[in-house]
Amino acid sequence: MSRITSSAPGKVILFGEHFVVEGQPAIAIAVSLRAYVTVEPTQSDEIKVYSKNFDLTETFPLNQRDSWTGKMTPVAVAAYTAMLEADKKTGLNIHIDSQIPPGSGMGSSAAVAVATVHATSLALGLQLDPRKVSDLAYEAEKVVHGKPSGIDNTIATFGGAIAYRKGEGFIQLKPIFRGVKLVLADTGNPRNTGEMVRRVLALKNTYPSILDPIYYSAGKLVVEAAQLLEKGDYENLGILMNINHGLLSAVGVSTKEIELLVHTARENGALGAKLTGAGGGGYIVALCRENDAEKIISALKSHATNVLTVNLEEEGVRKENI
Amino acid sequence: MSRITSSAPGKVILFGEHFVVEGQPAIAIAVSLRAYVTVEPTQSDEIKVYSKNFDLTETFPLNQRDSWTGKMTPVAVAAYTAMLEADKKTGLNIHIDSQIPPGSGMGSSAAVAVATVHATSLALGLQLDPRKVSDLAYEAEKVVHGKPSGIDNTIATFGGAIAYRKGEGFIQLKPIFRGVKLVLADTGNPRNTGEMVRRVLALKNTYPSILDPIYYSAGKLVVEAAQLLEKGDYENLGILMNINHGLLSAVGVSTKEIELLVHTARENGALGAKLTGAGGGGYIVALCRENDAEKIISALKSHATNVLTVNLEEEGVRKENI
Repeated sequence: MSRITSSAPGKVILFGEHFVVEGQPAIAIAVSLRAYVTVEPTQSDEIKVYSKNFDLTETFPLNQRDSWTGKMTPVAVAAYTAMLEADKKTGLNIHIDSQIPPGSGMGSSAAVAVATVHATSLALGLQLDPRKVSDLAYEAEKVVHGKPSGIDNTIATFGGAIAYRKGEGFIQLKPIFRGVKLVLADTGNPRNTGEMVRRVLALKNTYPSILDPIYYSAGKLVVEAAQLLEKGDYENLGILMNINHGLLSAVGVSTKEIELLVHTARENGALGAKLTGAGGGGYIVALCRENDAEKIISALKSHATNVLTVNLEEEGVRKENI
Repeated sequence: MSRITSSAPGKVILFGEHFVVEGQPAIAIAVSLRAYVTVEPTQSDEIKVYSKNFDLTETFPLNQRDSWTGKMTPVAVAAYTAMLEADKKTGLNIHIDSQIPPGSGMGSSAAVAVATVHATSLALGLQLDPRKVSDLAYEAEKVVHGKPSGIDNTIATFGGAIAYRKGEGFIQLKPIFRGVKLVLADTGNPRNTGEMVRRVLALKNTYPSILDPIYYSAGKLVVEAAQLLEKGDYENLGILMNINHGLLSAVGVSTKEIELLVHTARENGALGAKLTGAGGGGYIVALCRENDAEKIISALKSHATNVLTVNLEEEGVRKENI
């Protein structure tokens, strides 16, 4: 048993959010923002979790699993799940330091869960298959978050880009991502994923003849986008991001602040820009040529509460040599 | 032969712009902004047109029809067309005073043409069937503007609301429009209809599998909207305006300024808001309950260069008793 640090990347949904709920495909990619989790076995009978981001310490007694509450419960559950797999119960100190903005739809929670399972299992001497790491993190997430799509833990585990369709699972894409960056900008308004998903589905139920073809269009768009991503055809990929954004506007999840950021990015040279995730607030994502990024970032900074520049992250969960 | 004043209303496209170009239906309604045209036969051998809006006088010699140029040519051509129909050539003084903002996509040009044909024929002692007035105005418009859809002259002649499909012509709708208003707000950016139409068609040719279902959705939406308009179901009509706007955003004709106005209207209580016409600039239209109109207008005024409040106009072209 030893002290282990693992890290896993966050993600952005490039195409297909909302439409994915009703069986259309979506594309998500790992981004170069990672969650770092250090796990150290202790002699105690509790899991102690410290989050640097929230400057918060919480303690979870190993023999009172049912009593766990508090913000860090998902982390403790992820570690506990790995312990059960390793068949070794032990006290742990867990230290979390994440570059992924929490609550941003960038998969912060899943990246932490994946890195926690990875580090915990290694700390307990167990070398898990990546698929197993992903599955355990998913199980842990499910305990706390209901029924996630599985996109976030998959991306955090494997990195790169995936196409996903509900009921069919994942295809690993082979994206070419050179000379471009993704710029992410925060509207400053919180997302409310559940509420947005409910509203879109209600609209679809009221006007199926209008909404069904929009979903169909979104599905065709994702198929096209997957090919463009593998060809590195960024110009057309940007155009498809813009179309996808319009479809999200049509189903009612855009806002004034989102539009301001999306159009600011486009006007300043982004190849494409769209809301990412549930909408109603949250982040937008803009695809930019490297040479244009600085201008776009600077323009976005006058309207966004946070601007991040990321690359596609090829590498999924990994042990850090710290 | 006597001095006659006629007037005809402008229009807004409520649903289906752009998609109408490829055979989907559209809905346009006459609005309570009218173009007033006074025609007075003279002893001269020329048509003299004075536009109050442009503070401009232009003269068109009757015996040099081929040499006519200048901004007011469409008016002279409309009058001339009516003269040919009446089989009486005479000098005319024409005075134009329009409430319809020129270049707004609100059919200012067609309303002037319709009122000019109407007033000229009456001044020459000819009582034309409304269908004939509309056709002659269309012929006159065609000489100057290429090949218009025929929506504008139809609305200006008949008033009310129409559903239109290319190749199939018009259906007169029986709209209920009570307790609501339309608020129109100008982005201050000029439209460029030709350029926008070309861009949308180019996008459709590049991505037919993505765009075709969007057009299909837009068509279904118009059928639904026509029923809601005849029922006076404004709540759902507003929702369809929002969806329609998203589809227009998807085909690439929205802008930051358009989105700012659309979302400002919605945030301040509009039942629905969308760009109207070709996009890329121009006006947005918001459907508002009468009680909410003041708040919406006042909010729009901080962003728009012009804000107009209109009703549905039931009456088409008419002789004014002035």
